[in-house]
Amino acid sequence: MEFDEIEKGYSFNATFLVSDEMIRDFARITGDNNPLHLDDEFAKTTQFKRRIAHGMLVVSLISKVLGRDFPGAGTVYVSQFVKFRKPVYVGDTVEVQITVKDKNKEKRRLFLITNVLDNDQEVITGEAEIYLPE
Amino acid sequence: MEFDEIEKGYSFNATFLVSDEMIRDFARITGDNNPLHLDDEFAKTTQFKRRIAHGMLVVSLISKVLGRDFPGAGTVYVSQFVKFRKPVYVGDTVEVQITVKDKNKEKRRLFLITNVLDNDQEVITGEAEIYLPE
Repeated sequence: MEFDEIEKGYSFNATFLVSDEMIRDFARITGDNNPLHLDDEFAKTTQFKRRIAHGMLVVSLISKVLGRDFPGAGTVYVSQFVKFRKPVYVGDTVEVQITVKDKNKEKRRLFLITNVLDNDQEVITGEAEIYLPE
Repeated sequence: MEFDEIEKGYSFNATFLVSDEMIRDFARITGDNNPLHLDDEFAKTTQFKRRIAHGMLVVSLISKVLGRDFPGAGTVYVSQFVKFRKPVYVGDTVEVQITVKDKNKEKRRLFLITNVLDNDQEVITGEAEIYLPE
């Protein structure tokens, strides 16, 4: 989406299935092989009772939306804050919600609210700043 | 590492090779198939001239360190802020540097400076809050 078309208050949502395969691949890539993400029997012994996704895997879906969907190609990521509020379980479908909080036309910056919902509950909340070069 | 052993000022560093395979797998998992990460010919036409890693893939290495290395098992991720300062190129080796900025003994929280260096330059800077349950 073009910078000039994007107004304060605009929002964009996208849903993603957080699959077992994604979690196992993410564990392999990053080396984060915490059994809480990979081992059903271990997960049963934790407060979560079931395997959960790596928080940063879910955050990576925010990054995917910004770079590919809204605003999409050309987006330069400046910063991201995230707060992890609730776990995302293996097989959950999450909704990434991006809302334009503010816009700096001169510097071509967008200030975004970046939340992730799972079953209508906020699992990750946060904010991002992005830059859209001409 | 045990919460009681961790003092303000303590730091932990770990290095990671950001390989082409990691970048391709991360693109597949997240759906972030930006040609800037995947296509040499396209990357030549950009300001970067060469393919770069997804910023959030590099951030995921911070998460790996916190969950597996320092403090390691049992760490609960509360929040993370990151600022993307410079690109990481395919095949670079990066150093994740974690430093304890502050500690809240009662709430068992650690406030961390979380930076990533590439060839001695800061490519990502930021801060995290984590919780270590008893």
